Amino acid sequence: MARPAAPVAVDTMGGDHAPEEVVAGAVGAVREHGVRLILVGQAPRIRAELDRHGIAGEIPIVHADEALDMGEGALASWRKPRSSIAIACHLIKQGRASALVSAGSTAGVVATSRLRLKGQQGVLRPAIAVTLPTEPRPTVLLDAGATADVKPETLVQFAALGTAYAQVRLGLAKPRVGLLTIGAEPGKGNKVTRRAHELLASGQHGVEFAGNVEGHDLLRGTVDVVVTDGFTGNVALKTMEGTVRMAFAEMRSAMTASPAAKVGALLQRRRLQALRDRFDSDTYGGGVLLGLNGTVVIAHGAAQARAITSACLLAHELAAGRIVDRIREQVAATRTSRFGRWTHNDREGDKQDRPADKPADRPAEEAPPAAAPPPVVRPTPEAADRLAEAAPEPPADS
Amino acid sequence: MARPAAPVAVDTMGGDHAPEEVVAGAVGAVREHGVRLILVGQAPRIRAELDRHGIAGEIPIVHADEALDMGEGALASWRKPRSSIAIACHLIKQGRASALVSAGSTAGVVATSRLRLKGQQGVLRPAIAVTLPTEPRPTVLLDAGATADVKPETLVQFAALGTAYAQVRLGLAKPRVGLLTIGAEPGKGNKVTRRAHELLASGQHGVEFAGNVEGHDLLRGTVDVVVTDGFTGNVALKTMEGTVRMAFAEMRSAMTASPAAKVGALLQRRRLQALRDRFDSDTYGGGVLLGLNGTVVIAHGAAQARAITSACLLAHELAAGRIVDRIREQVAATRTSRFGRWTHNDREGDKQDRPADKPADRPAEEAPPAAAPPPVVRPTPEAADRLAEAAPEPPADS
Repeated sequence: MARPAAPVAVDTMGGDHAPEEVVAGAVGAVREHGVRLILVGQAPRIRAELDRHGIAGEIPIVHADEALDMGEGALASWRKPRSSIAIACHLIKQGRASALVSAGSTAGVVATSRLRLKGQQGVLRPAIAVTLPTEPRPTVLLDAGATADVKPETLVQFAALGTAYAQVRLGLAKPRVGLLTIGAEPGKGNKVTRRAHELLASGQHGVEFAGNVEGHDLLRGTVDVVVTDGFTGNVALKTMEGTVRMAFAEMRSAMTASPAAKVGALLQRRRLQALRDRFDSDTYGGGVLLGLNGTVVIAHGAAQARAITSACLLAHELAAGRIVDRIREQVAATRTSRFGRWTHNDREGDKQDRPADKPADRPAEEAPPAAAPPPVVRPTPEAADRLAEAAPEPPADS
Repeated sequence: MARPAAPVAVDTMGGDHAPEEVVAGAVGAVREHGVRLILVGQAPRIRAELDRHGIAGEIPIVHADEALDMGEGALASWRKPRSSIAIACHLIKQGRASALVSAGSTAGVVATSRLRLKGQQGVLRPAIAVTLPTEPRPTVLLDAGATADVKPETLVQFAALGTAYAQVRLGLAKPRVGLLTIGAEPGKGNKVTRRAHELLASGQHGVEFAGNVEGHDLLRGTVDVVVTDGFTGNVALKTMEGTVRMAFAEMRSAMTASPAAKVGALLQRRRLQALRDRFDSDTYGGGVLLGLNGTVVIAHGAAQARAITSACLLAHELAAGRIVDRIREQVAATRTSRFGRWTHNDREGDKQDRPADKPADRPAEEAPPAAAPPPVVRPTPEAADRLAEAAPEPPADS
């Protein structure tokens, strides 16, 4: 019998509505979907919340002294080595958790995860993948904000990361990958995308490249994966969210501007509600940070219980689908090609078998400061006991 | 009495529906708004279209042997020195036209205009400004696609270009300028935007800098001008257009999915039509290429008559507002600041008084080929005669 995947660690201190909504969402994931969880954060507060849900003692807790504030950015990851998110990362490193979920500030979660989990072997830079609600099936967009400055080779790797993600999450054998740029022809775009197009079009990277896509293609569902840098992807994603929000607000006001229109709105209520739900970020479970030694699901900071439940479920499914292994395979396919040596810090003989995470893997400007303190993780004895206790059985389908 | 502004040159051969819709739109601009125009393109076809509108002989025509195809990109500007767009540029250089309108391919129009009109003195790169239908007043977004690769200094200049444009088009004395990036704090963004933020925040550039804005702020109307590079701006604009289109399509389907919902839709018809119009690109007149020695209004390739009329009116208003002079003043304000020497090809003593458009003004990778043929413009004798004829009087308010 295969060993069941380790539980998902939930950072209960991250998010605008932490810990109440985060714990409520975690309880939903356990009760409705049978997902195994570990809750990380201030133990007394978590216990109080679990009491309120009548589920105390059923979900293990690991105490964390500190928490990142929502306003804190990347530096907090060094300032607070005992934050709930840092401890959740440590549980993954120890093999006690398979993935983690946080609704903390994206900058803080990304920086802490990069520092604690480190990049996967061979991966130049991590990327955040989000799933757009296109039809007939969703579209994966990456990077939505982890890596603002990229090289062409980084975009090729993002294509590999996105391919692995679409395989695990959407169950597609050969996801079609598009490159986001500003013209359909190969010669269009900026310097980085023009070169990335050449590399991807060479067909040497184990990726099903479908060519360039433009901004108006993002919601058309013409490809399964859209690849871009973290700057453009973040702008595009937020532009999309802002436009949808504005369009619905305008529609609502147009639809209730007169008594006759109000009657009309009543007659359409159910369908419009369904439509709103499709575009409600609560339903699509947040972004996923790919390329590290562990899966990190980043829920929206404003996430309510339902969004946290979705995020826990997603983290569980990605861990069960062994997303980290799939990414390693895909990235290896780009590296064993005739472009195998394009990673800019590669040295002779330094290929598949090199140890991961040496500083040389990263260009100097992004290397973590040498003085970064090692992670200091001291779960309370009580929490350690709880960890040892039997957690709920994994769902039958995992 | 001040000399009235020269007429607007209209490229009748550019666009998916050229020349029929272009001529129809030009006729609308003349008849409804009293704008003075010169129509450039194949004279017999233009004359036939004018005959159909019963306005033959009232609008001057300048013949052009060639036209850029919609699929043709930047190279066409060298291949076809006698294209309708090249001849329209020549009319501006001769002072016979004050601005030009084209619905041709953006790449072709931008490349031809850059080659023929040349960059304004002191302007590093041109930018396309578009006007987003925000409320209570519109927001100018630039660059929407002219310059895909920028330096921080280029973004500072775009802030100056956008300021001048908002002053002329929106009548604002001190337009508030935001920098599009991926976080509200100064330290957020990619390398280029972080440095651009520093430069703009110094307050030394004659620009009312309001800080960073994000993708979801684009349609909020929180600033008057949003500055970004041509790659990000083009992706954001097309993402917005695609999202609006999708949201309306979804709404329409949700609103007519059942007999009851259909009744509802009937009751809301007028308001929804008004809303659609606000987001219809036909109503906001296309993009404007800023930073050259002449104003170029680029209508959508799919523009119908109404959009061409808007574009002609916009070109006329910008010329009447002396947009080129305003840009020169704004850019001079950024150059006379203590950052006066940051333009990367500046040399000692080479400031305000240097002759414009020397090859040294441009980094090598973007300099036009030395072998580019000079513009060869030979209007037919007939067209030259027509040009000399009296054109319709300018409207009273210009």
